[in-house]
Amino acid sequence: MSNFAQTPKPPYYAVLFASKRNADDEEGYCEMSDRMFDLAADQPGYIGVETVYGEDGFGMTVSYWESLDAIRNWRNNTEHKIAQELGKTKWYEKYQIRICLVEKEYGLQRG
Amino acid sequence: MSNFAQTPKPPYYAVLFASKRNADDEEGYCEMSDRMFDLAADQPGYIGVETVYGEDGFGMTVSYWESLDAIRNWRNNTEHKIAQELGKTKWYEKYQIRICLVEKEYGLQRG
Repeated sequence: MSNFAQTPKPPYYAVLFASKRNADDEEGYCEMSDRMFDLAADQPGYIGVETVYGEDGFGMTVSYWESLDAIRNWRNNTEHKIAQELGKTKWYEKYQIRICLVEKEYGLQRG
Repeated sequence: MSNFAQTPKPPYYAVLFASKRNADDEEGYCEMSDRMFDLAADQPGYIGVETVYGEDGFGMTVSYWESLDAIRNWRNNTEHKIAQELGKTKWYEKYQIRICLVEKEYGLQRG
């Protein structure tokens, strides 16, 4: 079930990215999005990611990180900065980013 | 744009609920889900919620709360406990819950 990120015992960090996309440039967006998932996964301190988009263009992506430094480095990554700028000017109507400390975790796994 | 929760200046808390539903009992699930969104919104310390489900049954719901006490009260709510039990036995293949302290927040809003 690859939708779920494999995360360590807390504490660790989560970046919640809630976004509303416009309908423009689907192809350019998808290409960049794929590239950013790959690039993020190569960064130091990256743990994993969970993402889901609805049909109305509203989506949530949560990436998990070992530290605030790791989040800062990723935010300042040169190629990621280009993607952020395109996101602001072309792809998103609105987004909200929340930096969170994950304090507890539990779950259910069948079978 | 009602997909987005209106949240205060951090710090506050977020409960990340990542889940994979099975295909059973769609109607029962939806009815209970609607009821739980309404009931949560009536709880003390509730701030808001963001939720999105993909076509593959993977979804993310993030609810925002003023304190850990508010989260604990909601978790122990009698009607919510019944829903949790049904979720475990009927509706979810897997879920993961993460309790998070939101430390920073920023965003983009067009126009």
